Amino acid sequence: MKYKKTEKGIIITLARGENLIETLTAFCVKENITSAVFQGIGAVERVKIGYYDLGKREYFFRDEAGVFEVASMQGNVALVDGKPFIHAHAVLSRCDATCECIGAHIKEAFVAVKLEIYLTPLGVSISRKLDDDIGLKLLDV
Amino acid sequence: MKYKKTEKGIIITLARGENLIETLTAFCVKENITSAVFQGIGAVERVKIGYYDLGKREYFFRDEAGVFEVASMQGNVALVDGKPFIHAHAVLSRCDATCECIGAHIKEAFVAVKLEIYLTPLGVSISRKLDDDIGLKLLDV
Amino acid sequence: MKYKKTEKGIIITLARGENLIETLTAFCVKENITSAVFQGIGAVERVKIGYYDLGKREYFFRDEAGVFEVASMQGNVALVDGKPFIHAHAVLSRCDATCECIGAHIKEAFVAVKLEIYLTPLGVSISRKLDDDIGLKLLDV
Repeated sequence: MKYKKTEKGIIITLARGENLIETLTAFCVKENITSAVFQGIGAVERVKIGYYDLGKREYFFRDEAGVFEVASMQGNVALVDGKPFIHAHAVLSRCDATCECIGAHIKEAFVAVKLEIYLTPLGVSISRKLDDDIGLKLLDV
Repeated sequence: MKYKKTEKGIIITLARGENLIETLTAFCVKENITSAVFQGIGAVERVKIGYYDLGKREYFFRDEAGVFEVASMQGNVALVDGKPFIHAHAVLSRCDATCECIGAHIKEAFVAVKLEIYLTPLGVSISRKLDDDIGLKLLDV
Repeated sequence: MKYKKTEKGIIITLARGENLIETLTAFCVKENITSAVFQGIGAVERVKIGYYDLGKREYFFRDEAGVFEVASMQGNVALVDGKPFIHAHAVLSRCDATCECIGAHIKEAFVAVKLEIYLTPLGVSISRKLDDDIGLKLLDV
């Protein structure tokens, strides 16, 4: 994991094998980033991807072992219990002749080849709070 | 609909049941936003999604009643007849074990669970003007 | 190709038939942009889209002749051999009733209808350097 800060935002590159969510979280802790948005492209493998089942009030995740291109990734950073929490969604395309896509919430992913992230710290403090009706910790702005 | 302004951009959260396009439009009117770009993640339902058929010079839209994760959303705001107009594209992933994606132009969508949007006002005035060859109102920059 | 600069970033519109990668590259050369990130929506045709096969250490590309909506596009600009190089990923949705998506690395694409890009110059100089293990020129930050 390397990065370069600019006046606008931070370019972060993750190397093969790095844990996306853990590495970004550690970076935000180290840099004291209490709110941010980000986007990214590259490739990942060993992915837990899924969606929130509002009826069951729980996430469903599927495991994908193989390599996918990150055709699109968007997310944000906010505080949960005072610690930076990464909320990431992505569209992943299968690395075969179909280039077909799956997408949704990324619980876990490891970098394959490389991941190039652009993160914009927002300079304010935003927290997530549990919404009892939904069953999720939602952005409290 | 709630929001928090920062030096970089505005974090907007939409609650379950809110109309995406109408709510964003009303916000831009209220805040006098005459140009912006945005991105967003979350979940939506009751979606009209489709594409512009250049040959027929008209949009084709399909209706999706169920819930989809917003795996990716990107768009911009510009003036049409002096009023803020939202142009939004998204990749939606089906909330079932396939996580398969559909995508394109979003004409209408209602928030399911939550939608987290990051909107960057550009501080200039940009309008859309009808292009007779294309049959659409295009950004006039 | 037209553009409007703002304090935050640059709105760029590409017209029907323009070559996405060539046009963006020429713009970055002209404007002396040595690092940037971008996003975009619109429609493209005559696309070369594919993925990097890490085992074979080469890209696989497929050709798509028809028109696709650009449901999502993200990318960055950095220097390769001192010249701006565009790295673009996209999710493209088929312009038929399925709205199904393919996605990945965009080697080439021509604008259909229109493409609306938001590019943020980062004001620093970032280069790509060959990584012998991976076989690709990666961002050197």
